[in-house]
Amino acid sequence: MTQVRNKQVILRDYVSGFPKESDMIIVDSTINLNLPQGSNELLLKNLYLSCDPYLRILMTKDTTSGIGALTPGSPLTGLGVSKVVESGHPDYKKDDLIWGMTKWEEYSLVPATGMFKIEHTDVPLSYYTGILGMPGMTAYAGLFEVGTPKKGENVFVSAASGAVGQLVGQFAKLTGCYVVGSAGTKEKVDLLKNKFGYDEAFNYKEEHDLNAALKRYFPEGIDIYFENVGGKTLDAVLLNMKVHGRIPVCGMISQYNLTQPEGITNLAHIIYKRIRMEGFGVFEYYHLYTKFLEFVLPLIREGKIAYVEDIAEGLENSPAALVGLFSGQNVGKQVVVVTHE
Amino acid sequence: MTQVRNKQVILRDYVSGFPKESDMIIVDSTINLNLPQGSNELLLKNLYLSCDPYLRILMTKDTTSGIGALTPGSPLTGLGVSKVVESGHPDYKKDDLIWGMTKWEEYSLVPATGMFKIEHTDVPLSYYTGILGMPGMTAYAGLFEVGTPKKGENVFVSAASGAVGQLVGQFAKLTGCYVVGSAGTKEKVDLLKNKFGYDEAFNYKEEHDLNAALKRYFPEGIDIYFENVGGKTLDAVLLNMKVHGRIPVCGMISQYNLTQPEGITNLAHIIYKRIRMEGFGVFEYYHLYTKFLEFVLPLIREGKIAYVEDIAEGLENSPAALVGLFSGQNVGKQVVVVTHE
Repeated sequence: MTQVRNKQVILRDYVSGFPKESDMIIVDSTINLNLPQGSNELLLKNLYLSCDPYLRILMTKDTTSGIGALTPGSPLTGLGVSKVVESGHPDYKKDDLIWGMTKWEEYSLVPATGMFKIEHTDVPLSYYTGILGMPGMTAYAGLFEVGTPKKGENVFVSAASGAVGQLVGQFAKLTGCYVVGSAGTKEKVDLLKNKFGYDEAFNYKEEHDLNAALKRYFPEGIDIYFENVGGKTLDAVLLNMKVHGRIPVCGMISQYNLTQPEGITNLAHIIYKRIRMEGFGVFEYYHLYTKFLEFVLPLIREGKIAYVEDIAEGLENSPAALVGLFSGQNVGKQVVVVTHE
Repeated sequence: MTQVRNKQVILRDYVSGFPKESDMIIVDSTINLNLPQGSNELLLKNLYLSCDPYLRILMTKDTTSGIGALTPGSPLTGLGVSKVVESGHPDYKKDDLIWGMTKWEEYSLVPATGMFKIEHTDVPLSYYTGILGMPGMTAYAGLFEVGTPKKGENVFVSAASGAVGQLVGQFAKLTGCYVVGSAGTKEKVDLLKNKFGYDEAFNYKEEHDLNAALKRYFPEGIDIYFENVGGKTLDAVLLNMKVHGRIPVCGMISQYNLTQPEGITNLAHIIYKRIRMEGFGVFEYYHLYTKFLEFVLPLIREGKIAYVEDIAEGLENSPAALVGLFSGQNVGKQVVVVTHE
């Protein structure tokens, strides 16, 4: 039996309001680096962890979302890139690289179900927490399967420099759409215009009248709004949608920390403009993952798509990295490096 | 030249808040009962006029709806059943019965475009303002084309005894769904259960907690919510939708008279449950009208569908009939009889 240290990030208690670093504690645990007798699970060494907005939803006790919750006193669970230390499952063997649900700790014992084996390693491994993982698939499925963009259509993306938004904008540009993004700092707005190729971008914090801002960038209206934030942005967007507009609803990050969400008052425009507003879950589209890789890997290799990560080094810095998502501290996809292998 | 009296219902001015009878005035005008030389229009004798909630939207001056507006000082326009007095259009001749857009007056000169010729007269002519007209097509298209019900699914209908709601519920029952409706009086709730065959029905005015009411009738959640009212009902419904639920958005009558619409706070459930919420306009489905008649006429003739009208006699009573829609005075489809032929 090989006992080693296993640093963990423990959820202290359920969270209400904005999460704080102190909602998580770092502890040194130990773990046996041998798989239990007869186990069909995987023993993983975690390399990269993904900081995702949906984790906030799982930190609420009386979640009405019905999508489960984290357990206080236990390590956070989330998506990550890991190396197989020992496998009890025939599909995986020692030293395989995989991505999927793991825990916020150095080593994890997890079920093998729902894991993706990493076949392509000529790209940074951390990309499998983002452009080649769940956020990439989210952008792909949400834009193409739910939003169904056509060349020449007008697309608006909120949280546009985030893990998902930066890809949605670029995928829409590749489709021949006019694309505008909103973000919360000048640095992010510059990224949108100069790195991600958005046609226009604006800082929503500097717009006192979001309706007027949208009318400025979309004098003829919006065909597709890729919804990441909810709240006031959604309300202003509804006033500016075109007939038969589509709103793929990916997230509503502005609302997750509010005990009483903001009220949306312009929903009647769904009737006036015959709008389709549709929530989606990326996990229902993973059958398209191979097709997605065939689409996105060449774009990465040929430098036809840009991708920005915000890297936090070490589990010690992971609470701050996660909390920072909700005040927009991250620039691009927020990743935590547990170890560089 | 045959000049005759032409009683008209004139919109006095744009309306804000709840409409009042005094927002309309009855005047005696005159009309020449000969078609102008070279006209390709239709001169109609109006028989039945349809009171529809959407008319309220057209009474607002600064409509952001983009669906046009009525003109103060002119007669109201709306759907009706009429007899052709003289036709300048090759598709119609004297004494043809038609339904389509006409004006709130005894005789109207209107374009022939968009009119439907009435071929089946073994049913009451007034039905072409309702079950055989726009509201019938609305129920049919909204439920079957947008809602896509499957046998055994759970369907909730608001304003369920109205022109559209009473048909949605019956169509859903014919599909093998479990169907619950809400309405605003005991009389209407009784109609829903005893005449329209709803499985359950409740008076929303007697429910202090709409969320609790919906949980009582839908312990396993709602697959399809046919949205007619908006506001608090929609907010409670969002908490009770099932995964992959659908919300065909037909109307939001509770909101049309508010200067500041109520805020909807539970939209994040669109993500959690992957809900599709979709506004639709019946005018985009009229290519299905013949198919619809083939579906619904046998149901009427064989007594397999119930249909309740609320008849107001005479143009003098039309302002009260229209205004009554917004406080739920009508029981069933509100029709105004201009003349019994």
